[in-house]
Amino acid sequence: PRIVTLPGDGIGPEVTAAAVQVLREVAPDVTIEEHLIGGAAIEETGEPFPTATREAVRGADAVLLGTVGGPQDSPWNRLPRPQRPESGLLALRRAMGCYANLRPVRVLPGLEHLSPLKPELARGVDILIVRELLGGLYFDGDRRLDGDSAHNTMRYTRAEVERVARVAFWAAGQRRGRVTSVDKANVLEVSELWRSAVQDVHGRKYRDLTLNHEYVDSVAMLLVSNPGRYDVVLTENLFGDILSDLAAVIPGSLGLMPSASLGDGAGLFEPIHGSAPDIAGQGVANPAAAILSAAMLLRHGLNRPAAANHVEGAVARALRAGPTADLGGRASTGAFTDAVLDNVQ
Amino acid sequence: PRIVTLPGDGIGPEVTAAAVQVLREVAPDVTIEEHLIGGAAIEETGEPFPTATREAVRGADAVLLGTVGGPQDSPWNRLPRPQRPESGLLALRRAMGCYANLRPVRVLPGLEHLSPLKPELARGVDILIVRELLGGLYFDGDRRLDGDSAHNTMRYTRAEVERVARVAFWAAGQRRGRVTSVDKANVLEVSELWRSAVQDVHGRKYRDLTLNHEYVDSVAMLLVSNPGRYDVVLTENLFGDILSDLAAVIPGSLGLMPSASLGDGAGLFEPIHGSAPDIAGQGVANPAAAILSAAMLLRHGLNRPAAANHVEGAVARALRAGPTADLGGRASTGAFTDAVLDNVQ
Ligand SMILES: CC(C)[C@H](C(=O)O)[C@@H](O)C(=O)O
Ligand SMILES: CC(C)[C@H](C(=O)O)[C@@H](O)C(=O)O
Repeated sequence: PRIVTLPGDGIGPEVTAAAVQVLREVAPDVTIEEHLIGGAAIEETGEPFPTATREAVRGADAVLLGTVGGPQDSPWNRLPRPQRPESGLLALRRAMGCYANLRPVRVLPGLEHLSPLKPELARGVDILIVRELLGGLYFDGDRRLDGDSAHNTMRYTRAEVERVARVAFWAAGQRRGRVTSVDKANVLEVSELWRSAVQDVHGRKYRDLTLNHEYVDSVAMLLVSNPGRYDVVLTENLFGDILSDLAAVIPGSLGLMPSASLGDGAGLFEPIHGSAPDIAGQGVANPAAAILSAAMLLRHGLNRPAAANHVEGAVARALRAGPTADLGGRASTGAFTDAVLDNVQ
Repeated sequence: PRIVTLPGDGIGPEVTAAAVQVLREVAPDVTIEEHLIGGAAIEETGEPFPTATREAVRGADAVLLGTVGGPQDSPWNRLPRPQRPESGLLALRRAMGCYANLRPVRVLPGLEHLSPLKPELARGVDILIVRELLGGLYFDGDRRLDGDSAHNTMRYTRAEVERVARVAFWAAGQRRGRVTSVDKANVLEVSELWRSAVQDVHGRKYRDLTLNHEYVDSVAMLLVSNPGRYDVVLTENLFGDILSDLAAVIPGSLGLMPSASLGDGAGLFEPIHGSAPDIAGQGVANPAAAILSAAMLLRHGLNRPAAANHVEGAVARALRAGPTADLGGRASTGAFTDAVLDNVQ
């Protein structure tokens, strides 16, 4: 199998390098090819998603992404929007057709104390957020900014909702069988369509699973006050952006949270944390999310569940043995990666 | 002064009655007139915001609202959107021109244990969320739903952003002097306008205050992992809906959280919790949020800060003495209200 890595910006290169070390260990037969994305690509080619990268990902079996974006005052952020680093990431997602973004949030036994929540609330939390990734306010063409007014449009078609809903139900079938669909149907027409399309998919094929609908404000609240009530949470793109970052702090650090973006072709795997320019290059970034993204790549991208479990177990053991600074520990990126490597061997 | 109360649906009537008892005690000179809103208004008049209510609020010095909306399976939710209970609330906000919604989130000393967060994170949290209330996806006319697609538009004008930004800076000036403006400027044009307009207001008149800009996903995360870093949080309508419910759980219960909606005319004061139809009529609802909304009415609506402080102190003492069920206590609505009344006398 052929894997493309896109280390990107900030701590992206460090954590991707760690994940690649682990991948080479558990899947020595894969070929790995590195390409440019985001700010790093802008520096080299003037574009955040260069043609060479586009062509490389087209032929890949899976793509492992680092992180994209500079500090707030970066000159990249003063470029016209389509030339900024984040636009490279969005263009990549679109080019790969990855419409379903899976973000698992799991509090590992024995690591409840890392959570900002009281341990009794954090214990046993195991949520899968399924975020629609190619629709809504993100990609719509009806967007405008002039000096005195601006707008963006949140738009969905029934087909776009149905295809991501199927992924959520499929995932729920392998878990505890419950899907909570998020919307703001008391205010938004687009949420009414969302609700009705999700309901239809459920009624047609997944009546053995439990579906309920909750408002986005209520979900934000309950994710904090009672996260144990959720199994699979299905949401549109922007709500998912907000709710998945929110949920991601429950285990204690964004540095733990991987993601998989799936569609009809190859999958895209990336940590959900940002590029953290303030700590880039210091060797202190937590590579756990990148390594766990590589595990998701093994599971969903290469269909190697045993290797994926192996890596996940090794990360859990390394976390118990000595976490990185974001979790209050002292392990460097390298030391943590070595601990994972020791545990997978 | 003339106050209009709109008890509304679910637990609205119970908690509003409690707040009215307290108001009569500390401001015996006010006249109070009750009117219909939401589902209760639909039942009586066929409309969620009847003409009589519209006229009554027009002449009022302040409006005290209960809660609006039925259970998910309520027949009200099958009415055409403009006739549903929530549309009555939105029409009320618009009719009163209340564009700045203030939602204070404060963890009271000695009540840290009520928070879902670890006590060391909850201690001392004192945030004011300033939510734009009349713009964005909520009221825009460009909305559509047909069988196969739907859209809503998030739109702001510079003037709409500037007026609510002024309220946020004014409030920050009376607090710790820091405003965090929330946007998603890495993706949305409307957020770029938001950011630039807030920046302008700051530069023109409030350079002595600290302003910074953060992405909505990051704020959702940091409100949980490090809420102590926030003073005033300024946000557009839908982001504010999500973030304020999220922040509201930090003190332990939505049942504690009041709000004030201000504009150019009279203010609207309401608890931020919903109508909680599951516990309506049982006499167990927490009236604290409604009573604290009455305190905000005294402060912002009638300019009686001493009376407002008096009520807030009484609520804090009653909470320490014995909270309601939502906070793990056993006080009924009536018993809790009596405790507040004892404390204001
Ligand atoms: C960087 C940004 C465009 C991106 C998003 O909003 O999708 C990020 O926040 C994420 O969640 O992956
Ligand atoms: C009931 C609903 C329309 C309302 C809103 O979204 O504004 C509520 O959630 C709130 O926050 O006051």
